[in-house]
Amino acid sequence: MAAWFISLQLSLLCLPFLGICHASTIPKFSVPIFQPERLSISTPNQLYTESFFTQILDHFTFTYQSYQTFQHRYLINDSYWGGASSNAPIFVYTGNEGDIEWFAQNTGFMFDVAPHFKALLVFIEHRFYGKSMPFGGNKSVAYSNASTVGYLTSTQALADYATLILDLKNNLSAIDSPVIVFGGSYGGMLAAWFRLKYPHVALGALASSAPILQFENITSPYNFFDTIANDFRSESENCYKVLKESWQQIDNTASQPGGIDLLRKSFRICSNYFSSGSLQGWLRQAWIYTAMTDYPTPSNFLAPMPAYPVKQMCKAIDDPATGNDTLAKVYGAVNVYYNFTGTATCFNLSDDSDPHGLGEWSWQACTEMIMPLASSNQSIFPPSSWIYSERASVCYASNQVYPRRNWITTQFGGQNIKRVLKRSGGNIIFFNGLRDPWSGGGVLQNISESIIAIVAEEGAHHVDLRFATSEDPKWLQDVRKREVNVMETWLAEYYTDLASA
Amino acid sequence: MAAWFISLQLSLLCLPFLGICHASTIPKFSVPIFQPERLSISTPNQLYTESFFTQILDHFTFTYQSYQTFQHRYLINDSYWGGASSNAPIFVYTGNEGDIEWFAQNTGFMFDVAPHFKALLVFIEHRFYGKSMPFGGNKSVAYSNASTVGYLTSTQALADYATLILDLKNNLSAIDSPVIVFGGSYGGMLAAWFRLKYPHVALGALASSAPILQFENITSPYNFFDTIANDFRSESENCYKVLKESWQQIDNTASQPGGIDLLRKSFRICSNYFSSGSLQGWLRQAWIYTAMTDYPTPSNFLAPMPAYPVKQMCKAIDDPATGNDTLAKVYGAVNVYYNFTGTATCFNLSDDSDPHGLGEWSWQACTEMIMPLASSNQSIFPPSSWIYSERASVCYASNQVYPRRNWITTQFGGQNIKRVLKRSGGNIIFFNGLRDPWSGGGVLQNISESIIAIVAEEGAHHVDLRFATSEDPKWLQDVRKREVNVMETWLAEYYTDLASA
Repeated sequence: MAAWFISLQLSLLCLPFLGICHASTIPKFSVPIFQPERLSISTPNQLYTESFFTQILDHFTFTYQSYQTFQHRYLINDSYWGGASSNAPIFVYTGNEGDIEWFAQNTGFMFDVAPHFKALLVFIEHRFYGKSMPFGGNKSVAYSNASTVGYLTSTQALADYATLILDLKNNLSAIDSPVIVFGGSYGGMLAAWFRLKYPHVALGALASSAPILQFENITSPYNFFDTIANDFRSESENCYKVLKESWQQIDNTASQPGGIDLLRKSFRICSNYFSSGSLQGWLRQAWIYTAMTDYPTPSNFLAPMPAYPVKQMCKAIDDPATGNDTLAKVYGAVNVYYNFTGTATCFNLSDDSDPHGLGEWSWQACTEMIMPLASSNQSIFPPSSWIYSERASVCYASNQVYPRRNWITTQFGGQNIKRVLKRSGGNIIFFNGLRDPWSGGGVLQNISESIIAIVAEEGAHHVDLRFATSEDPKWLQDVRKREVNVMETWLAEYYTDLASA
Repeated sequence: MAAWFISLQLSLLCLPFLGICHASTIPKFSVPIFQPERLSISTPNQLYTESFFTQILDHFTFTYQSYQTFQHRYLINDSYWGGASSNAPIFVYTGNEGDIEWFAQNTGFMFDVAPHFKALLVFIEHRFYGKSMPFGGNKSVAYSNASTVGYLTSTQALADYATLILDLKNNLSAIDSPVIVFGGSYGGMLAAWFRLKYPHVALGALASSAPILQFENITSPYNFFDTIANDFRSESENCYKVLKESWQQIDNTASQPGGIDLLRKSFRICSNYFSSGSLQGWLRQAWIYTAMTDYPTPSNFLAPMPAYPVKQMCKAIDDPATGNDTLAKVYGAVNVYYNFTGTATCFNLSDDSDPHGLGEWSWQACTEMIMPLASSNQSIFPPSSWIYSERASVCYASNQVYPRRNWITTQFGGQNIKRVLKRSGGNIIFFNGLRDPWSGGGVLQNISESIIAIVAEEGAHHVDLRFATSEDPKWLQDVRKREVNVMETWLAEYYTDLASA
């Protein structure tokens, strides 16, 4: 599965409906946070050229080891740039947990607005992902144990970005070109944090669907799954009920003689060897993922998906032709996600091969990205609670190091964010779509005149960052217009400041 | 010499008047940045009690090694505190390069204003200084080589402070008590940077004599020594000229038959074995140090010093009784610094034994604290230039690691500080006294409504932070009043924000 994930808390992994509960399941049963999509463009290399920067391994110590370097990849497109002589802006994508090419290709908004701003486009890869691999570029060495992968942290990544950007500006003689950082999902968190921590490098940040408040007790741990429930419920009460009750139905079926075989046939599962738990995990991923990417236009993630896929799933569930047959209804719905084109003859539940970073993210999810998530009684999933000690012990078993539970809020804040940032900080847009399960961990209210929240009731996970299409609804066009307007304001202020200096 | 120093650039160390030029001279011939002074109080332990916090070695990686801990010392005084129930404030000193007790005892301002603010006082020691020694508390292990002392960095220290403060607030159930950080010199840099990087932990910062702009090419490298020249010149043109010409005079004398013996007698040097270079280094330290601590009241650093010591030195130089005898004049001046009480029978130039951190600081000065300083034609010292490659190679020879020349500005900014911080940041007071050589690297102009510069023409190195005395001039009283007023504003705003949340 070519997808980027924020691992779900382990307490959920141990629920009966997932069947199994051990460390190796972390990447497998994780919550998708980003939906990358390869553009169907014939020559993607027209979008950018690839470059490398010699980056230092550890910015925050001066041990011998810290001086090791690696080749840090970034993509650049200067075809729209107004140039250094006019101090034209530089738009930088702060790469998240995956191959930077995928993020570049899925952040069409930057390409769409670059001509208007005469902006240079730069997409910087996150260390330990894609081609930006420390320890000689050897991934198996880099990920061998904590003594190497221990350098995979958000703070190091942010310092990488600062170092690379300043060096690039220097090389381009573009010292006074203002930089705006962009990012979606974890990349959005990095963009926001980058503006807060490196205001001398970035003038502003567009942080899309960045759940920077999904830590400690800042927001309810139930938000994520409650939002999914609301998404399906908003289509029909029956759809919500069928999904909610399906887990018990599957368990009941599995426990009866011939039940596993019935399940295998009902869901066209290729192999005879599967558990009801793996089936449930497979379904669960489809519901979560579809809720996140409930976009208003067709999208293309591995297999094509229709516009408004949640609506399509509920249509399948509400189809009178399936009567009271829950398994048939659920099968119809899950086909929207796994088999929209109808070409699949059977499904391989254990096909979780991922060339792009599941294992990598599970390291981050087990060290600093400790985001409590739990399933309430309102959820379409069975209830579950968030138990830190369980996460900690499974992470330790897997990595031989414990998470640092409070580190993200110690380093980046989050508690009482409005009170804090109204007296410091500035120039950040937080976009959230309320149909996105991650929106519950996002900044949904304006903080100050220049730290603003743009909220789209009908929006899903960083929908604003996608390439514009002719079918985009008006609300989405308006969101992007507003984002452009705010960035124009930042730049106008900047050039005024620059002229008066 | 119980003193804290910012090492001078090595090009100066190689000037003829210093006589020698090798790595081991770094700590010896360094520029004093802080003047600690033991209070003459009978029971200093009434000021605070000592506590320890189990601190993590490396906040920014998750290597196995990073999980090592050390006992991190802080001093606390709750006798003035209004308590958690009233959300009374917490005033934190962000410790700099030395034993935290010395800083606590030299930051009387915090004790003086604590009753007014009902503030809890906390003084946190800087890692790798005093008793806050990683690697089992064993200093010789901690400083053995880069693999251990490599964890001595400003970013780690700031993260230490954030971690400790949040833990302490939690333990005191004082989550909503606002924190204001204080610091002088390097501690002032840390205070300012802490407010910029951790606004969720500190509401504001009083950064006294913090040369945060003394990096790269932000300010002139000549500022430091030019200010010293101006200090002496402001007393008398003759004083300035005598000092300026004394180096040549000493060299000339030394090169004549019997010259060394003449110098020995003229300066009452204890040993027969000394060079004109070591004499000149000894004098140089006196001029620099006296300029930095040109306080309006008597101070007590090792030996007592009079009020306005620069004036006293120039009085000695301008004394008609010494006629044209430059050596006698210089001797008279240097006595103000080394022998104000007149009890010394002879001077030991090589007595640079320092129990409090010279070697420690030299590590920082050779890794991240790369502050260009050079001596112009206007200086009382021989001209010198700033040559980075020389610094780098001497540092490498000494530590087997190279400095990271641009790291501080990459991490903390400094270039175009006004343009940057007027759109981000808030609640910082930068105090500078213009007689302080370090003021040339300080923030001397208001940046925004809440990032303000307080500049005292007659002030020296963080004079505002000293205990008030009945002889303090009005301008100093006014500076402190203004600082109190500004902090009152921050707190009033905070409590309003808190009430409206």
